[in-house]
Amino acid sequence: MNNWIQNFKISDPFWKRYEDLLTDVVIPYQEAALRDQIPDAEKSHSIENFKMAADVMQNGAEPGEYYGMVFQDSDLAKWIEAASYSLLQKPDPDLEARLDEVIETIKDAQYPDGYLNTYFTLKAPDKKWTNLQEAHELYCAGHMIEAAVANYEATGKTVLLDTMKRMADHIYQRFVVEGHPGYPGHPEIELALMRLYHATGEEKYKELSAHFINVRGVDPDYFVKEAAARGWQVWGMEAEDRTYAQNQMPVRDMTKATGHAVRAVYLYSGMADLAAETGDKDLIKACRTLWDNITTQQMYITGGIGSTVHGEAFTKDYNLPNATAYAETCASIGLIFFARRMLELEADGRYADVMERALYNTVLAGMQLDGQRFFYVNPLEVVPGISGVVPGYRHALPQRPKWYGCACCPPNVSRTIASIAKYAWGLKDETVYSHLFLGGELDLTKELGARITVETRYPYEGKVKYHIEGVPIRMAIRIPEWSRHTKLLVNGVPITVWPYKGYQYISDAQTIELYLDMDPVRVYASSRVASDSGLTAVMRGPLVYCAEGVDNGGDVLSLRLAGNGQIIAEPYTDTLCGTVKLKADGYCVHTEEGTLYSTTRPKLEPVQIDLIPYYTWGNRGLNEMRVWLPEV
Amino acid sequence: MNNWIQNFKISDPFWKRYEDLLTDVVIPYQEAALRDQIPDAEKSHSIENFKMAADVMQNGAEPGEYYGMVFQDSDLAKWIEAASYSLLQKPDPDLEARLDEVIETIKDAQYPDGYLNTYFTLKAPDKKWTNLQEAHELYCAGHMIEAAVANYEATGKTVLLDTMKRMADHIYQRFVVEGHPGYPGHPEIELALMRLYHATGEEKYKELSAHFINVRGVDPDYFVKEAAARGWQVWGMEAEDRTYAQNQMPVRDMTKATGHAVRAVYLYSGMADLAAETGDKDLIKACRTLWDNITTQQMYITGGIGSTVHGEAFTKDYNLPNATAYAETCASIGLIFFARRMLELEADGRYADVMERALYNTVLAGMQLDGQRFFYVNPLEVVPGISGVVPGYRHALPQRPKWYGCACCPPNVSRTIASIAKYAWGLKDETVYSHLFLGGELDLTKELGARITVETRYPYEGKVKYHIEGVPIRMAIRIPEWSRHTKLLVNGVPITVWPYKGYQYISDAQTIELYLDMDPVRVYASSRVASDSGLTAVMRGPLVYCAEGVDNGGDVLSLRLAGNGQIIAEPYTDTLCGTVKLKADGYCVHTEEGTLYSTTRPKLEPVQIDLIPYYTWGNRGLNEMRVWLPEV
Repeated sequence: MNNWIQNFKISDPFWKRYEDLLTDVVIPYQEAALRDQIPDAEKSHSIENFKMAADVMQNGAEPGEYYGMVFQDSDLAKWIEAASYSLLQKPDPDLEARLDEVIETIKDAQYPDGYLNTYFTLKAPDKKWTNLQEAHELYCAGHMIEAAVANYEATGKTVLLDTMKRMADHIYQRFVVEGHPGYPGHPEIELALMRLYHATGEEKYKELSAHFINVRGVDPDYFVKEAAARGWQVWGMEAEDRTYAQNQMPVRDMTKATGHAVRAVYLYSGMADLAAETGDKDLIKACRTLWDNITTQQMYITGGIGSTVHGEAFTKDYNLPNATAYAETCASIGLIFFARRMLELEADGRYADVMERALYNTVLAGMQLDGQRFFYVNPLEVVPGISGVVPGYRHALPQRPKWYGCACCPPNVSRTIASIAKYAWGLKDETVYSHLFLGGELDLTKELGARITVETRYPYEGKVKYHIEGVPIRMAIRIPEWSRHTKLLVNGVPITVWPYKGYQYISDAQTIELYLDMDPVRVYASSRVASDSGLTAVMRGPLVYCAEGVDNGGDVLSLRLAGNGQIIAEPYTDTLCGTVKLKADGYCVHTEEGTLYSTTRPKLEPVQIDLIPYYTWGNRGLNEMRVWLPEV
Repeated sequence: MNNWIQNFKISDPFWKRYEDLLTDVVIPYQEAALRDQIPDAEKSHSIENFKMAADVMQNGAEPGEYYGMVFQDSDLAKWIEAASYSLLQKPDPDLEARLDEVIETIKDAQYPDGYLNTYFTLKAPDKKWTNLQEAHELYCAGHMIEAAVANYEATGKTVLLDTMKRMADHIYQRFVVEGHPGYPGHPEIELALMRLYHATGEEKYKELSAHFINVRGVDPDYFVKEAAARGWQVWGMEAEDRTYAQNQMPVRDMTKATGHAVRAVYLYSGMADLAAETGDKDLIKACRTLWDNITTQQMYITGGIGSTVHGEAFTKDYNLPNATAYAETCASIGLIFFARRMLELEADGRYADVMERALYNTVLAGMQLDGQRFFYVNPLEVVPGISGVVPGYRHALPQRPKWYGCACCPPNVSRTIASIAKYAWGLKDETVYSHLFLGGELDLTKELGARITVETRYPYEGKVKYHIEGVPIRMAIRIPEWSRHTKLLVNGVPITVWPYKGYQYISDAQTIELYLDMDPVRVYASSRVASDSGLTAVMRGPLVYCAEGVDNGGDVLSLRLAGNGQIIAEPYTDTLCGTVKLKADGYCVHTEEGTLYSTTRPKLEPVQIDLIPYYTWGNRGLNEMRVWLPEV
């Protein structure tokens, strides 16, 4: 079922704010960025590239000067996806008209044979398909296919869908019918083709997705050979490092998440979608193994993945440095994609737990609370003067920029938030799954003859109340692994909480009241994570907390949690859009002044440590910030 | 006084072992390396380069193919320095003959006008002096001047000395007489010229040293202009980053140690030597300020400096990551040079304390205990599979290689150990300073009519006993800052320990018995050092300790020191050449298996933690290693 976004009207304070922010601020802001109208921000030129390409195609004009990354087309695609979904939440005829106009331009930029990519149209029309390793043609196609599906789902219009079907047909012709070798340097089209298949029911697109998944890494030297043959390059990327783009071996043999993290999770998402569709046992096994490797060996507590700036990549198990973390926003979005597809494969709460962790922490941290600045990189420790400055830390900016030359993340956050209902809900074996806890109204009249209303102030509060009207249905309510003491009332009567694989299955209820354990908890990392040893993090519900200088006298590095102290949630304030802050008993250590090393045990001054949710950090100026704190 | 090495015969177990290792293993090993005779090691070709250059000069031969770094000449120079000094400890006519032969070759490689540098002779004779930024001509000259002084001091022979005086005269002619602009891209010649001045008494060399120090950074754009003018490059180094080579401003204005750490401390050493000689108040002030910045804001507990691999450089105050530390062996050697010269400037124990810290920890760690493998980089935390492997950690090798393509460090360790007496002793205002505690016999008959015998098993034990015979003298015994409870007996009678600036001054003693506090101590870093927060290090005397996997069940990351536990020194064993190991009360934590993050507080299993001196780590195979441990 693909109409969750249409069927679900959000009304809870947390997500309603995000939805309004998206429709009223983020979508217009990002449109302005794509139209190069934001002063002092990096230029996008993405729409302009399409206009010039259309001019070439329609009028035989001389190609104008392409500007931007080789994958600049995808920034527009992600925004179209977000903007299309936003129309479902808040109809906006002007926006819809502008969308239609942009889509017409995209259609006009297409070659008669279906080919579509402005970089090649404007810069290198004779080099199409010769650089799958670097040139992102299949990646851009994937994103525009996703945009097309979203636009179709949101508006019922088929202009972009037809355009991208023609592009997909063109690709099918080349790689399947004509049998040209190769696979994408940046996976993405695999999952996009599965979406196209789900939207259209056309087997061909599933077949094409399967093709790219199946041939990947069968010839691990493909990019090496291509690089040797092509005689041109975008960046001169190293083709010898086969793990970077996950082509070191056939995908079914993979056991470790490797290389560029976004590439990796986009690929695994496509694999999971295909596996859920085909039941391919080897592919399912590979997906599970890769999932386990990521989530039990290579993931930050914030759901961030890909710990190194070098190649924006996974490194080795348990290598999770905090201050130099890369943890790209897009990578956590990709992890959410992967999680959601694993949930289609098998309803297991551990997928939803990770999905929630990545969403409420890294992905939301990727955007400033005002919706106008964005993080690409999400460090877990920030020290002004070092973060963003010192070599090795330069990527770890301590404040969000307005836009990026490589602007993959901002519109990716938008499309994820705009389609949050897809992640919140699931339907499998006639059971309605509540994966995430969002307040609002889910209209399943057409599908099941039922309507579900959810009242909650989650993640601020742990109570989630479901009202089910209409035909009795079976529901599966996720019981998060982190909720140590969970209560459930069905039709007002307490029941034993006994989840199967993370879900409590309940049939024929009129009301379900879920009380999740929102006591702040201390979290300890595996002792194999060197960077976290001796340190403690604090969570409340799905939210990872951090200490920021502005709340703590400017000095976070001197803070120590009291091992036996209390951590209490503060009453609501207006700070940080009304989030819940924590107060923890702790100490400020005073080490000897004027020396680096002292035998004098640091003096401990009792203090209250103010903690804020990680997603809200960096909203109040340049600041020290830390997720993991020593405990005494 | 420059004849400490001649006058002091080492006999204590610690340094005698090193001296024997040096004469019997290291000097021959490094000679073999320089002659490209070590199987499976990086080639040096340094002697061969000189032979080919001599062939060009003497026989007008076609230049053979130069091999190695642009500063390959300096590797041979450092070895000549070490080998010359070793002759004083252990006469070796064969070695001396080989030295003479090599020196003849060097002399033969010199141009008639005094110019000497095999890179330019063989590769670029028309490009001399056009690339001071990158091409290391002045640096190589400096090292060969140092070698010449050492060879002269050790053997009384003047072949190399005269050769290098001619080169120094050539440089003087160019930069002082003819007034060509420029200063060294890699400082070194400044301190070398001061050594040449001290050895020969010729003012001209002091003047030339002062010239390079005084013009440095006055035109901070010199390298930028040079790079624009020259039209060729060695590596294409960035001339715009003026802090890298410390030319961002005149040296007297500098307040922060910046850039390439070896360059920095070599420069500061030259500055300190000159300042001690001239009494230049601004220069003295700059030296003190830079010293304070390094030692109270930018130095590892091991005396390692230069925390980043990017440019092998200083970064920002308090940025001292452990696992990715660079802490080049040569940089700590340079810090010792700087310290020793500051001691000439003013007798203050803090300089000697740091000198000792760098020597007994980072510098000695730079060489395997068997003298045949060497560290360039000295991390404070090692995790096999990550260290030396993961991008960002690749420089931090977990085991010592046999040699390096860039082999600055191995012979630098040799020459430092071979001249250890220079660092141990000082003479100022007719007072004999005991900076470091080495057992042996110091013959000052010629200088003061006295002989001092020192009995000690330092750093294994804290007792140091001085016997003074002959004319009564004044001595200044360093009381290390780390010794919290120090006892002193003069002629068998206890005296009050009341040091002035770190030294106890004692006149006319026949015996002095010093008892230093060798109780193991816990050390805490300033809370501004993010990487060490909540962590504790252990020292005993001057030695920093670490935990290594081989002693601790393979798992160092799970170790926690017991905050209230004992740390005791073990009786001598044969392990690690008879060093003193420590046993600390502690725990092994058991975190939840199969998950990265858990709310279950880790279980603590009481264990004895084995600690070894940092300089002995990495001698027993691939291993986890950690200096800073969490404390519970």
